[in-house]
Amino acid sequence: MKVYKNPNASDWNSLAERPVFEKQKLDAVVLDILKDVKINKDKALVGYAEKFDNVILKSLQVENSEIEFAINQVPQDLKDAINLAKENIETFHKSQKEKEQIIETTKGVKCWRKSVGIEKVGLYIPGGSAPLFSTILMLGIPAKLAGCKEIILCSPPNKEGQINPAILYTASLVGISKIYKVGGAQAIAAMAYGTETIPQVYKIFGPGNQFVTKAKELIQQDGVAIDMPAGPSEVLVIADKTSNPEFVAADLLSQAEHGPDSQVILLSDNEDIINRTLQELKKQLGKLTRNNIASEALKISRAILLNSIDECLEFSNLYAPEHLIIATDNASDYINLITNAGSVFLGKYSCESAGDYASGTNHTLPTNGYAKNYSGVSLDSFVKKITFQNLNEDGIKNIGPSIELMAEAEGLDAHKNAVTLRLKSINHV
Amino acid sequence: MKVYKNPNASDWNSLAERPVFEKQKLDAVVLDILKDVKINKDKALVGYAEKFDNVILKSLQVENSEIEFAINQVPQDLKDAINLAKENIETFHKSQKEKEQIIETTKGVKCWRKSVGIEKVGLYIPGGSAPLFSTILMLGIPAKLAGCKEIILCSPPNKEGQINPAILYTASLVGISKIYKVGGAQAIAAMAYGTETIPQVYKIFGPGNQFVTKAKELIQQDGVAIDMPAGPSEVLVIADKTSNPEFVAADLLSQAEHGPDSQVILLSDNEDIINRTLQELKKQLGKLTRNNIASEALKISRAILLNSIDECLEFSNLYAPEHLIIATDNASDYINLITNAGSVFLGKYSCESAGDYASGTNHTLPTNGYAKNYSGVSLDSFVKKITFQNLNEDGIKNIGPSIELMAEAEGLDAHKNAVTLRLKSINHV
Repeated sequence: MKVYKNPNASDWNSLAERPVFEKQKLDAVVLDILKDVKINKDKALVGYAEKFDNVILKSLQVENSEIEFAINQVPQDLKDAINLAKENIETFHKSQKEKEQIIETTKGVKCWRKSVGIEKVGLYIPGGSAPLFSTILMLGIPAKLAGCKEIILCSPPNKEGQINPAILYTASLVGISKIYKVGGAQAIAAMAYGTETIPQVYKIFGPGNQFVTKAKELIQQDGVAIDMPAGPSEVLVIADKTSNPEFVAADLLSQAEHGPDSQVILLSDNEDIINRTLQELKKQLGKLTRNNIASEALKISRAILLNSIDECLEFSNLYAPEHLIIATDNASDYINLITNAGSVFLGKYSCESAGDYASGTNHTLPTNGYAKNYSGVSLDSFVKKITFQNLNEDGIKNIGPSIELMAEAEGLDAHKNAVTLRLKSINHV
Repeated sequence: MKVYKNPNASDWNSLAERPVFEKQKLDAVVLDILKDVKINKDKALVGYAEKFDNVILKSLQVENSEIEFAINQVPQDLKDAINLAKENIETFHKSQKEKEQIIETTKGVKCWRKSVGIEKVGLYIPGGSAPLFSTILMLGIPAKLAGCKEIILCSPPNKEGQINPAILYTASLVGISKIYKVGGAQAIAAMAYGTETIPQVYKIFGPGNQFVTKAKELIQQDGVAIDMPAGPSEVLVIADKTSNPEFVAADLLSQAEHGPDSQVILLSDNEDIINRTLQELKKQLGKLTRNNIASEALKISRAILLNSIDECLEFSNLYAPEHLIIATDNASDYINLITNAGSVFLGKYSCESAGDYASGTNHTLPTNGYAKNYSGVSLDSFVKKITFQNLNEDGIKNIGPSIELMAEAEGLDAHKNAVTLRLKSINHV
């Protein structure tokens, strides 16, 4: 972790820049996969499973018997933990339901909006080193609450053609029954275009590797929506002299272990805390299973000493972190200074892993500076808000003449005429 | 307008398809413009103004004196009309403010979200045949309500280097003072990358021609957000035997006059109404200034006779219209059958032009079937919803053990450790 002491304001922009990784030129490869799945459907998927997952699949869909078997394999204490997380996530996302309110903007003109669940959504859950069942909670729960009618899930199988039991248990817990053994760009293609087995959806959610990310980027051009643009996960911690260096180091590491491209940033107005945190980092790092990954991440990470906590927040807004931990005294005092962040953790007991798993907030958040212009996933992500309006005779009489004038000024005769005919009919009655 | 009578269900999909226009291969042209503006900034913009707008600009920014002059040129009755529209749009969008509510998901675990305006936004308002000052109301008012700190506007100048007075008046009315004389893809580039004169923004809104649309599509890859994907405007009207054919025809035409690619769809359970509406269409069409445009649009449009109004709604959901007018008796009875639509107009006095200008709802809506997975522009479009969480000692004690189990099951040690250290410290006190 590189340390910067009171950098000049002119260096802030470069200090707030993300590390640039050379992107592989995946367009051609991924476009080929998309095209193949569009044309050859299930057959293509079975082929890719053999090629990439080293398994010959008998069936793409997970069978009920497999789900039942998996449920029995998950230990009860883990089930209880997942259930508790589910409760909290449900409670928080339920509170995001918008109450319908009819607004009479002018006498006789009523306007309102109604949230309607996106009919068909697809969730992608990566396999690989970590079976991210927690992401099923984060996506499946709001999808259910939103009233999405068809919720499907794709995840790559292992060499035995199986999906991790915790993934199947969690999917079943949130009420997702259509689960498919498909990974990578081919999973995104299957959900975007549909195959004989896998239904086509209108919006695709979930994390993934570079191939998945590229596929999600490309299928938007075919009218399919996605949750948000992707980038490596990141955290920014603001600490003062009252912060606990052990906790701060643990939080930085819990981000760093995500991947070698995960950047972590420590800001403080106190040099001593920075030094003690760096010592703690070294101590804790050695004990981690994923210490190679975390070490790589720390190489692209930064500790920056600034003049005040206010200045730390200023820098944080410039960086726009996915996760912002304010580990200072009276953390809540700084809320109004935060303009750009995905999710904020206040005070010494609000560790990032709380939000990653069980506090109730969503962990699908904007990374890579996207916190400047995107929100994290919420109930909103699974609905369309349809506007309604109802004008009665009074309504059209009250606003009709204004519409006529505006339409005329914009050179749109027919727009004007639609009002003129109605006003005439009222006056003739 | 082609008429279809009781088509087979198997033909519905093809009847609900949008006409396909050959897209010009604009990628290369637009990428060149983006690159040029990124490198040569203001100089490039001045060059494009000379090339495309036939004007040598002395200054890219509209000066205060120009705004003052424009304000005096707009007739008072049009000003009054714009003011009335502003009031209604403001009232409706103000009602979309989300009230902050702190949710205690588990004892000691508090979660909430806060809406924070996107700091810098850019609005694009096309020039050309119609000066769309109404779009400034639709974008500028929610941007102001959301608390966006920097709101800029780009619009192409005419040959005299001027912007339409109604555009300048409306911008000034909603409080936008940074207005630039730049059009086309180069305007989108300027707002995405910034120039000496034009500030860089985080999100770009507004309609435009194919070049503008392509530029908006491409700049997303550089991290700039856009309002929504674009397509030709469209309306679907559902009529029954009680509907007024004169009104229905006027509404169809007010959409058809938008552009030769604007599709309009009429659905009814009553053949007589379809026939009478077609007669009315002919009658009204001849009187329109833009009758050439509307005639072209009608060629790609459809009137479909179906068995019932319920079936009309089923078809409408399949089509997912930008504008849906329910011109039947008891229109409100059908609200719960609507799953896909941008904005809905209920009853005989709720014409589309009401929503286009002055009822209060937003007219920036998802077209081209995007109503299946996107919402129209609203206050939400101008904010990020940042989540917050605050755990106290009880909180981490209550959910900590569950987090430890889940993190362990996902193979993420450091996530677990961040909790373990905190639980230990509490037990040791």
